[in-house]
Amino acid sequence: MDYLRDPAAIYERSFATVRREADLAALPEDLEAVAVRLVHACGMPDIVADLRFDPSVAAATRKALASGAPILADCRMVEAAIIASRLRQGTRVRCTLNDERTPGLARAHATTRSAAAVSLWLPHLEGAVVAIGNAPTALFALLEALDAGAPKPAAILAFPVGFVGAAESKAELSQAPRGVPYLTLLGRRGGSAMAGAAVNALSPQAAP
Amino acid sequence: MDYLRDPAAIYERSFATVRREADLAALPEDLEAVAVRLVHACGMPDIVADLRFDPSVAAATRKALASGAPILADCRMVEAAIIASRLRQGTRVRCTLNDERTPGLARAHATTRSAAAVSLWLPHLEGAVVAIGNAPTALFALLEALDAGAPKPAAILAFPVGFVGAAESKAELSQAPRGVPYLTLLGRRGGSAMAGAAVNALSPQAAP
Repeated sequence: MDYLRDPAAIYERSFATVRREADLAALPEDLEAVAVRLVHACGMPDIVADLRFDPSVAAATRKALASGAPILADCRMVEAAIIASRLRQGTRVRCTLNDERTPGLARAHATTRSAAAVSLWLPHLEGAVVAIGNAPTALFALLEALDAGAPKPAAILAFPVGFVGAAESKAELSQAPRGVPYLTLLGRRGGSAMAGAAVNALSPQAAP
Repeated sequence: MDYLRDPAAIYERSFATVRREADLAALPEDLEAVAVRLVHACGMPDIVADLRFDPSVAAATRKALASGAPILADCRMVEAAIIASRLRQGTRVRCTLNDERTPGLARAHATTRSAAAVSLWLPHLEGAVVAIGNAPTALFALLEALDAGAPKPAAILAFPVGFVGAAESKAELSQAPRGVPYLTLLGRRGGSAMAGAAVNALSPQAAP
């Protein structure tokens, strides 16, 4: 069969297509490469119109990752999407969803496991990079924790997906980001591939 | 903040929204629940129009998974998306992308690591369930292997994503499925969440 097999050529043609089709004009220069990676991860150039962000988010995330700050992920798919070899050596990617304490916390607080898992982030939250790719309730729980005085992360990369709470939680973040640099995609779309792509694009060893 | 926290209520409302918005009328009855899970995974009801399948794919996948057939995944994100507790005990989910032999095979065959990883599936391919959520070249390589006489898997669940080869590889599968029951999403869209959702929907302990 006739298809492109050379990895470098595939990346080159992919990114050229994304840059041709996506309207990146409204983005700060340092978010362009992030947006290209986000589009590449989902195959949909039109997501760029729904991106919302604090203009400092790329620099803040880059700085945190360069210093080896931990990454807090809401699910194992985000963990799997993050390219560990591009991170500073020793960087911890933490996902507390399957922590043995999480189911009990969820029952005790009458909430989802995803939201309960966020309560286990608290000791690691200060200066961390938060990457949410699945659960709207994780984002809601994080915003509630910040309202209750939790330490501030360096940045929130928020891509929860779906029909209940995804659009609402991301709208809340973009309207009231609690003083934390953020990047999000309004609406129902999102996913772990995008959350991971955002981290990868801002990692110390990010591909050009 | 006011948001839905009860996991059962979230699922119920999500699936009700999907069923209200997605047009499932053209699907065989036993693919309806799969399509609902696929839409739920990506937040986009309009994907249903781009689904292509062999009408036997749900039954064939269910039967294979009920018998404990292995699942072959093209990337770790698909592995992470599969809910192991719903599978028959002892079911192996294999991802050979990070096998130590894969980089050498990719160099030797001048192809991607994803395509090279497929060559390591061959001893496990007969009767397996293939779940592709990332790499078009994995799907192309699988079709080439079948053309070369490789044993047939029980089913191919194909959701590679992106701008180079994704639409082409899925079109090839749907036009010439090589006698293997398949489910795919035409076009650039796809992803590991969808590939995992298809497996989860057809697992022995699938949620209703």
